Amino acid sequence: MLDVHQFINGADSYEADVLDGFARAHAGLVRWNRAPSYVVRRNPAPDKVALVSGGGSGHEPLHSGFVGDGMLDAAVPGHVFTSPTPEQVIAATKAVAGDAGALLVVKNYTGDLINFRLAAEILDASGVRVRSVVVDDDLATETDGDGDPGRRGTAATLVVEKVCGAAAERGATLDEVADLATRVVARSRSLAVSFSGAQLPGSSIRSFEVPADEVEFGVGIHGERGTARHPLRPVRELVAELTARISGALDLASGHRVVAVVNGLGATPAAELYLAYGELAGCLERAGVRLARGLVGTYVTALDMRGLSVTLTVADEEILALWDDPVRTAALAW
Amino acid sequence: MLDVHQFINGADSYEADVLDGFARAHAGLVRWNRAPSYVVRRNPAPDKVALVSGGGSGHEPLHSGFVGDGMLDAAVPGHVFTSPTPEQVIAATKAVAGDAGALLVVKNYTGDLINFRLAAEILDASGVRVRSVVVDDDLATETDGDGDPGRRGTAATLVVEKVCGAAAERGATLDEVADLATRVVARSRSLAVSFSGAQLPGSSIRSFEVPADEVEFGVGIHGERGTARHPLRPVRELVAELTARISGALDLASGHRVVAVVNGLGATPAAELYLAYGELAGCLERAGVRLARGLVGTYVTALDMRGLSVTLTVADEEILALWDDPVRTAALAW
Repeated sequence: MLDVHQFINGADSYEADVLDGFARAHAGLVRWNRAPSYVVRRNPAPDKVALVSGGGSGHEPLHSGFVGDGMLDAAVPGHVFTSPTPEQVIAATKAVAGDAGALLVVKNYTGDLINFRLAAEILDASGVRVRSVVVDDDLATETDGDGDPGRRGTAATLVVEKVCGAAAERGATLDEVADLATRVVARSRSLAVSFSGAQLPGSSIRSFEVPADEVEFGVGIHGERGTARHPLRPVRELVAELTARISGALDLASGHRVVAVVNGLGATPAAELYLAYGELAGCLERAGVRLARGLVGTYVTALDMRGLSVTLTVADEEILALWDDPVRTAALAW
Repeated sequence: MLDVHQFINGADSYEADVLDGFARAHAGLVRWNRAPSYVVRRNPAPDKVALVSGGGSGHEPLHSGFVGDGMLDAAVPGHVFTSPTPEQVIAATKAVAGDAGALLVVKNYTGDLINFRLAAEILDASGVRVRSVVVDDDLATETDGDGDPGRRGTAATLVVEKVCGAAAERGATLDEVADLATRVVARSRSLAVSFSGAQLPGSSIRSFEVPADEVEFGVGIHGERGTARHPLRPVRELVAELTARISGALDLASGHRVVAVVNGLGATPAAELYLAYGELAGCLERAGVRLARGLVGTYVTALDMRGLSVTLTVADEEILALWDDPVRTAALAW
């Protein structure tokens, strides 16, 4: 008996039900391998460097929605908010990697790090050339402490996947694509705010609640609570604070060019994301920073959180040109 | 002092703030005229039939998100859930219509009908050739009574705009595009369910609430209550009922081909929409109906309603070919 407001059949079949619908909706673009579970391009491109990413489900359209021409070759979905297994990563990578090797794009969470590292070792031992890049853009968990998990991987993942996907498509070598990924990661920072926590499939409990006159700062994409709770302010002031903190972390200065992503966490209307983007554009303009490319939409989610994140990547000519290259995936196409 | 969980600056500036952000995010595609307010293609196409649509704001990305190559030439946004004025429609149409004339795509609501009709009369009198089509796909308000408002216009609007936009781009005449629109409307039906009503910008009141173990059937895209409230069931059963009712209304039979749209109402995670799409595909398969094309996403919304709609359009070769034609807009691109 269901008693939660979700369009699901039940928690047990949730991930498979979602992937089944996704694969049916995009049958021209992707193929879903049910067991072990992974999503690959319908039209393989075995001569180029393969881009493989993955992580817990619940962040849709990340990562499966970015499989296709000019972006990912394979996506490996774990259960909700749970790393995929090494077996899944190995099978997906073997399905798409040719002689040019594969880059594994990993978000900075302990489970993902362990499982992708193990997969990489086994792939390497079996003759598949792999390199890995860890995305760690989320300022909210930045610390000075050695041995801390450090910044979480969030929406900058899509910037890495778009830019490196284009480079791979152009014929870059594995080392070139990996170095580029490292460069994009180093130049990217994100920060997220939310009015609500996340509610797991089939669960009636939300990870946290926020009073109507407050907003949670520094939330994560697994329904993690923020680092602070602030009185609710107009989005102009919220975005100004997000922008100031990200700009500070990136040492942004007048004359710099950035790629900006305003990203919904799952339940935020597109209109409000555009509104936030307008404010971001104003902030950057006043700082003399050139908003070279912008992307607004719901791309890296935390199930049904009513929040948003801002990501800035300091861009150069190469990054901008790769960003502009054609892409044809379920969630991103131009 | 804000005390609602929305990313806005306030109710007064809401529509302008959203459009400002939208126009900045898609400056390569569209241009926003602030007063009177309308959105037009950045690169005008004056030699073809112009497609103009509009209606209240609050349904984003409809309609502004569909302005671009292969779809709309202009979109005319009113205030939230309020028809645009005749002056807006006239100015937008004059900005994009050439000798080939313009088709106005109007959703079936009293305010829209009045204002678009008046605009059409004035445009006609001033020498601009116009025809209008009224989209009325929402089964929830179907009645037998003469003089009733009849079926509301909802997500089939995007099917009309995509197919007719492609026909106009191919060089069809105004009468051909208008007749095609009429044909698509006649072959399209929708039905929506929701777990919540809508909350206006700046308002702390939701248009209706639904107990956790129930679901509202037949809701509208302005937060209108449904026609019935049912016990919550797995999405498999919900979608089966939606599909059965739409199929009945369209006299769908084995061998028919359809275009299907599973559409989020604003706050529904993409994963759940895909899940619903998988169930829809199964229902159609079992009925021998061919799901020729499918679209899953958040396209025609009711601010932040946590609901979804299903739209089916009975397709033929021409409709499918036009559906497949290239499109490049903020919300739809292939």
